Amino acid sequence: MRTEVVTATLAEVTEKGYDGLTVDAVAARSGVHKATLYRRWGGVDGLVAEALTASADQPWPLPDTGDLAGDLRLITREVFAVFTDPDLGPTPTALIAAAQRSDTGATALRAFFTARHRQAATVAERAIERGELPAGTDGAEVVRAATAPLYYRLFVSGEPLDARTAERAADAAALAARAGLFAPEAD
Amino acid sequence: MRTEVVTATLAEVTEKGYDGLTVDAVAARSGVHKATLYRRWGGVDGLVAEALTASADQPWPLPDTGDLAGDLRLITREVFAVFTDPDLGPTPTALIAAAQRSDTGATALRAFFTARHRQAATVAERAIERGELPAGTDGAEVVRAATAPLYYRLFVSGEPLDARTAERAADAAALAARAGLFAPEAD
Repeated sequence: MRTEVVTATLAEVTEKGYDGLTVDAVAARSGVHKATLYRRWGGVDGLVAEALTASADQPWPLPDTGDLAGDLRLITREVFAVFTDPDLGPTPTALIAAAQRSDTGATALRAFFTARHRQAATVAERAIERGELPAGTDGAEVVRAATAPLYYRLFVSGEPLDARTAERAADAAALAARAGLFAPEAD
Repeated sequence: MRTEVVTATLAEVTEKGYDGLTVDAVAARSGVHKATLYRRWGGVDGLVAEALTASADQPWPLPDTGDLAGDLRLITREVFAVFTDPDLGPTPTALIAAAQRSDTGATALRAFFTARHRQAATVAERAIERGELPAGTDGAEVVRAATAPLYYRLFVSGEPLDARTAERAADAAALAARAGLFAPEAD
């Protein structure tokens, strides 16, 4: 049932946005009874949160090029590719915008990004093992540094995002990490 | 009249958010007739856009410490200080969130950030003159790199922002800029 509900929520929020999202439409689309949706998820904000939780749970293959900058470039290239793709981009874009509209959604959004950062931090941990980065480097922070310039354009400044920007953000984060900026010693 | 309308719009959007923002309330608060507001600004989205344009027009003193990292640290410290201050933060936070809710607002938001980046690029241009950065360095991009990790936390991931993060973002941007990552030669 959860899969049907999440799929229906994603389709509805992509087509209609948060303002057009209703429990009725998710019920009709998923085939799950409205009363069940309200009982289990409380309303549209709970449905948006569930969709984010389901996204965070999905396996997400991490690059392993043997080089931090190479791995970070593949991560930022993936963010760039997904969000700027006319078919793939609208759903995560609508989901993030919808999540920002309620406390329930915002809490799920923060948990989603924290989980993603923690997962992707593996590329920094491997770099520490290779001796490419100082021990104690905050891997999640390296990932945030690499991806923040992309999300900043996509969701805050609205300025255009291109492949070169994505690559440069990865290179800048790798450079800062190698210089020890994300290690405790830098304090 | 513009000043009164902008002041009233900022107060209303801070108190009530985009969903509670009405032309009636801005009219009552500003003392400007409702018909005038509709004629000149078209509605709430035009009022939000006007408030952003007015903010972009305000003089904004730039640091000049004689060192790029020092200047960028003062810029990110200012962003951190404003947005995390319980008195100063709510208005720009509400204004940015409101602008994201319409095409008119989003266009004004993009123009606002583009203007800010261009203005703050002065710190990078001075660094080029001092020989601290390669000629041709994209100063606006240096500023974006320094501030993106802050806005990412504030408006996308929702993760907490602290002074250390602001400082580190400035240092990472300065490091990348000095390495030539924002210069054409890096292509």
